[in-house]
Amino acid sequence: MPKPAPVSVDVDTPSPFRSRAEKIREREEKREAVLRAAVRMFNAQGFHATSLDDVAASLGISKPTIYHYLGNKEQVLIECVTRGLEPLRLAAEAAKHEPGTGLERLRRFLRHYARINMEDFGRCMVRTGDEFLSHEGAVQFRARKRAIDMALRGLIEDGIADGSIAPADVKLTAFTLAGALNWPARWHDPAGPASVEDIAASMVDILTSGLAPRS
Amino acid sequence: MPKPAPVSVDVDTPSPFRSRAEKIREREEKREAVLRAAVRMFNAQGFHATSLDDVAASLGISKPTIYHYLGNKEQVLIECVTRGLEPLRLAAEAAKHEPGTGLERLRRFLRHYARINMEDFGRCMVRTGDEFLSHEGAVQFRARKRAIDMALRGLIEDGIADGSIAPADVKLTAFTLAGALNWPARWHDPAGPASVEDIAASMVDILTSGLAPRS
Repeated sequence: MPKPAPVSVDVDTPSPFRSRAEKIREREEKREAVLRAAVRMFNAQGFHATSLDDVAASLGISKPTIYHYLGNKEQVLIECVTRGLEPLRLAAEAAKHEPGTGLERLRRFLRHYARINMEDFGRCMVRTGDEFLSHEGAVQFRARKRAIDMALRGLIEDGIADGSIAPADVKLTAFTLAGALNWPARWHDPAGPASVEDIAASMVDILTSGLAPRS
Repeated sequence: MPKPAPVSVDVDTPSPFRSRAEKIREREEKREAVLRAAVRMFNAQGFHATSLDDVAASLGISKPTIYHYLGNKEQVLIECVTRGLEPLRLAAEAAKHEPGTGLERLRRFLRHYARINMEDFGRCMVRTGDEFLSHEGAVQFRARKRAIDMALRGLIEDGIADGSIAPADVKLTAFTLAGALNWPARWHDPAGPASVEDIAASMVDILTSGLAPRS
């Protein structure tokens, strides 16, 4: 019998079998979609009023699928607050090595800080009290926030040392700045007219100049 | 039969029957004790993690006794946040009619504001998100907070008008000040060494002077 001619392969038709790289990317995209849905519900309704069933339903998936990608509700929250803290940590790390006076570096860091706190994960991080977490989760959360507070204090100290920041109680100054710039997580409306960049810059200017007029 | 001599009444022995005034006072004291126990538990453990059973147990009473004095858990919370808001409202009202420049009156108000937020009820008020309350509760809570925000903006406007405060975006300045002075509700440790008066005064000085040195 004659051998049949080989079937020609149309190279333009994508393979229905995904490569390993595609599978990894797809898994990351799904995990990201779950996290994004969860953080928005936590921010809108509060952590306690949100169930993973609600999050799953909003994505048309089942709760076990969320467990598969992220774990239980506390683990989802920890991932959300970690996503809020990580850019703050990176901004603090960068601020150490940037050029400029202490005040200039502090101001750049504070603008980042304010902006991040108006984004989904930053907002969730600020709103999350220790009491939302297990003891171990709260200990870890506090340690990571403390690292950022320490970086903030370091920048203030640098500025006092080089004369660009007026001498003041460093710890209390750090808490005052952090409070002012955490609070947008409570009041900022992402649908509002001003951009987060403009709001962040204006708040940092207010804190830099102070209320009293400068002659 | 001879009439018996009337029993002599010892006027120094207090009557075991309470007067109406005493009953009212006792009721107030009990209500106050329940509220104080509740607000401290809300602050320490979070609202959601606290049950009225816990509050009742801490006072050696039953949950129905709490219902009797205050109502359900949301009603207890509303009473707590109202107790936090009321002194702010009074301080804002007083600031309108006090002597001094806009900045002087604003600074006095801000020191009150910061102090109140470090007390039990103020701390609870700041920590309470709208999402803890029913729709009606949240609407009322927001309206009362808005009245205080408006008073704060009024003082800033007065200061800008009389030249004691540098021209600035009034709304954003109000939010910046409020955030800085709300945040102690998250970090302030009542067992710490500094008095709430000193912390409040130092924070208001930092916000008045700003970070940049004044020549």
